[in-house]
Amino acid sequence: MTVEATVDEGRRLAILDAAAQLIAERGYHAVRIADIARTARTSTGSVHYYFPGKNDVLTRALRHAVSRAFDRQGAELRKIDSAYERMLRLIDMQLPRIGQVRDEWSIWMQYWAEAIIRPQLRPAHNEFYARWREAVVRIVQLGQRQGEFRKDADAEMGALQLTALTDGGGIRVVVGAPGMTVSAMREVLVAYVKDNVLSS
Amino acid sequence: MTVEATVDEGRRLAILDAAAQLIAERGYHAVRIADIARTARTSTGSVHYYFPGKNDVLTRALRHAVSRAFDRQGAELRKIDSAYERMLRLIDMQLPRIGQVRDEWSIWMQYWAEAIIRPQLRPAHNEFYARWREAVVRIVQLGQRQGEFRKDADAEMGALQLTALTDGGGIRVVVGAPGMTVSAMREVLVAYVKDNVLSS
Repeated sequence: MTVEATVDEGRRLAILDAAAQLIAERGYHAVRIADIARTARTSTGSVHYYFPGKNDVLTRALRHAVSRAFDRQGAELRKIDSAYERMLRLIDMQLPRIGQVRDEWSIWMQYWAEAIIRPQLRPAHNEFYARWREAVVRIVQLGQRQGEFRKDADAEMGALQLTALTDGGGIRVVVGAPGMTVSAMREVLVAYVKDNVLSS
Repeated sequence: MTVEATVDEGRRLAILDAAAQLIAERGYHAVRIADIARTARTSTGSVHYYFPGKNDVLTRALRHAVSRAFDRQGAELRKIDSAYERMLRLIDMQLPRIGQVRDEWSIWMQYWAEAIIRPQLRPAHNEFYARWREAVVRIVQLGQRQGEFRKDADAEMGALQLTALTDGGGIRVVVGAPGMTVSAMREVLVAYVKDNVLSS
């Protein structure tokens, strides 16, 4: 990579980090290109150069936040041999604790609200859903080979239920639903895995 | 009720219906008070009279849409004696089919996105979550008394999982996640009830 390319890449990432953070904190509709420029310590021209329209900002901020999360999770999970321990770790890493993970949840949830109205936003989002579900399917299948998980569990259905349950739980934590704390969400997900996937 | 009160109530409901429909179709941030007035065939002054701020419009549109859904569901469910049949009917009525129910989903999902950013929106929302969860707890307990449902099922945990799964499934249908149709969502929820609640 040339020096210019490295500087460009650094600036692009700073803009993406700034966009993701501002969207998470203030909401997509409240974020102006000028705010992103200020937070990334660059010019509005530079933000426009990387993201020609405001839609691009949301889609790319989601891609950025999700890729970052997938990379982080993948690196952690590969270190763990037991499928059950791997599942518990994945659940743990997805809990919307205050900080980076909650910011990522905020971006997801705002993306849903936009994607209902603007179907052109859906493919990017659904590509991530498919990857997430696939990752869970693979953990279930690994556990079945290891004998930790029930051989008769339907891996596809289990992955669909577990990812949907994660979204439903995450929403409840983030909007402060009564009794739904981060640790209550963990309990709900672990109970699901014990009752539906784990060998008895 | 006086004639004036009836006219007022009619106008208030027309404004609420208009607000709910426009928010569902265009997204909360795209809806202007003038659009609501036009759709409800009234003046912007009249909309402002009932809803002093734009936040009020979103909160009241949610209340309106959710109350309408609860009334509709309650009336249907009371006709059904078997708890299992009642659960299936509730699942069915919550599927985001195109039309009124999908519009209600759109409003919920936009409300989440706003409630992350503005905590003052959360109590109204969470009051509905608590009522929904309670309704499911009561169906599970009814089924346990009737012997249709497992006596050892934890009604609170079951209700939490089932409502969270409903949200997670609904999101996937509404954003067009691959393979997640209305009937696939029904399958996911019914499979959960059969595996976790229904007596074997």
